Amino acid sequence: MKVLLVFAHPEPRSLNGALRDVAVAELQRLGHEVQVSDLYAQGWKPAIDRGDFPTLPPDERLLPTVASKAAFDAGELTQDVRDEIDKLLWADVVILQFPLWWFSMPAILKGWVERVFACGFAYGVGEHSDKRWGNRYGEGVLAGKRAMLIVTTGGWEQHYGPRGINGPIDDLLFPIHHGILFYPGCEVLPPYVLYQAGRLDSAGFDAAAERLRERMRTLAETPSIPYRRQNGGDYLIPTMELRPELGASGAEGFAVHLSEGSGSTA
Amino acid sequence: MKVLLVFAHPEPRSLNGALRDVAVAELQRLGHEVQVSDLYAQGWKPAIDRGDFPTLPPDERLLPTVASKAAFDAGELTQDVRDEIDKLLWADVVILQFPLWWFSMPAILKGWVERVFACGFAYGVGEHSDKRWGNRYGEGVLAGKRAMLIVTTGGWEQHYGPRGINGPIDDLLFPIHHGILFYPGCEVLPPYVLYQAGRLDSAGFDAAAERLRERMRTLAETPSIPYRRQNGGDYLIPTMELRPELGASGAEGFAVHLSEGSGSTA
Repeated sequence: MKVLLVFAHPEPRSLNGALRDVAVAELQRLGHEVQVSDLYAQGWKPAIDRGDFPTLPPDERLLPTVASKAAFDAGELTQDVRDEIDKLLWADVVILQFPLWWFSMPAILKGWVERVFACGFAYGVGEHSDKRWGNRYGEGVLAGKRAMLIVTTGGWEQHYGPRGINGPIDDLLFPIHHGILFYPGCEVLPPYVLYQAGRLDSAGFDAAAERLRERMRTLAETPSIPYRRQNGGDYLIPTMELRPELGASGAEGFAVHLSEGSGSTA
Repeated sequence: MKVLLVFAHPEPRSLNGALRDVAVAELQRLGHEVQVSDLYAQGWKPAIDRGDFPTLPPDERLLPTVASKAAFDAGELTQDVRDEIDKLLWADVVILQFPLWWFSMPAILKGWVERVFACGFAYGVGEHSDKRWGNRYGEGVLAGKRAMLIVTTGGWEQHYGPRGINGPIDDLLFPIHHGILFYPGCEVLPPYVLYQAGRLDSAGFDAAAERLRERMRTLAETPSIPYRRQNGGDYLIPTMELRPELGASGAEGFAVHLSEGSGSTA
C-alpha cells in the first residue's frame, strides 16, 4: 500500500518524532511505500490568505471558498498545495499525526486542511438535489482511501473518558474524524491515542511503540468507524437531519451518526 | 466595560468584517472600551515554533509546554504574544469571532490560542493534590471575565441541529467553549451563530446585525453556560471523572459537564 503520513510537531527529537519513526519503519518493513509531509520541517504556510491566490486581483474581495474553487478549477493553486493534493491522490492510507493541543489539532495542521482541502476538490462537489446533497460524508475525492489519527495527549486516559472532564476523546476527535476525513470520502479507522505523553518512561515507550506497530500491521483490515453515509437514505434532504425512525429514540449528538448496531461511539 | 474582540477572517470587506463593525459600533455607542486584535491584518504568526523562544539554545529540544513555561516565567515571550496577554488581562469580556472552517476555528486563531495561552499563564498553574487539580475549568488567570464566540457557517441551521449531519453546534464548539475559554477561568456565554452565511440578502443581514447588537447590549447579564467547576467537588481526583452520583444515570459525553437542572446542552 501507499501511505501518506502528515506530521505536525515542531521537534523531530520529540516523542512524536520517535513514534513517527516507529510507524514509518514498520510500514517500510512491511513493504509499503511511505511519504511523510513534515509540516514544520517543510516550512508549511499555516494560514490561508491572499498568498494562496496569486491571480486574485488586489482589489477583489478574498472569499476563501470562492477563491479556492476558482484556483482549483483553473489549476492555479500554489505549488505547495498541489504537491499535497498529489500526495493525497497517490495514497491508499492517510495518517495525520499530532499532539492534541487545546483539544484539537495544531494550527499548522489545521492550516494544511484549510489550504489543501480546496473547494472543488474536497468540498463543494457533486449534485445537490432532492436525492443527494453533494459528494460528502462517505463520498468524495478521497473515497476508497483509509485514514487514521495518531494522537498524543498530556492528560490522563480517564480525563478523556466517557465522564472525564475534558470530554470523551471520541467526541473531541469527531470534528476531525467525521468532519475532515469522512467528509471527502475516507473510511476512518479508530485513532491511536497515547495518553500522559509527558510522563513516558522507557518501558512505557516500548509498549507504546509496539502498540503502534501493531496498528501499522493491521491498517488494511482494521474495521473503520461505521459512520452513516449521507446519501445512503438515512438523512432527510435538504435539512440533513437523521430520519426520525433511525437511531435510539430521542438520541442526539455525534453518536447518532454511527450505523445502528455498531454499539459504540467509535 | 472593556471588550477585546479577536477577529480571524482574511477579508475586511466580508460578512464577518461587516458583523465585526456592527459589534464594535454598538459596544462603543454603549460607552464600552473596545480593542480589536485583527489577526490577519496584524500579520499574526500562526504556528508556535522556535521563533517563539529566541533564548532557547539551538541544540536544545523544542518541547512547547516546557519552552512556553520557561519563557513566560522569565518574561521572555515575544512582544506580539505579550501584547495579546496584556489585552486579555485588560479585558472584562473576550470575544472570538471567526467563520467555522472544517468545524473549528481558523488555523490563525488556533495559533493565537497556542501561542498566547502560554504554560504558566493559561495552563499548567495551581496546586495538584487530592483536593485540587490545578487552576482550571472555572478557575485561572481569566477568572471573572466573560467570553463569547461570534461564528458564521456556510451550512444550514438544521445541519447543525441535535440530529443534523454535521453534529450539534454546541458539541462542535464545546472544545472551544469548555476546553479553551472555561479552562483558564472565563465564564462562557452562549455563542452568536449565523448560519448560511453565504446566502444572506440585505434583509437577512439587517436581522443578523440587529440580533448581534442585542447580544452586545446584553453582554453583562446574559446567563453563562453552567459548566461545572473542576475543583467544586463534582469530580473525582485525580481521574477527573464526574462523580457517579452526579448527572443523569449513565449519562456520558460533553453534556454531563453542565450543572444539574440547567436543562440544556448550552
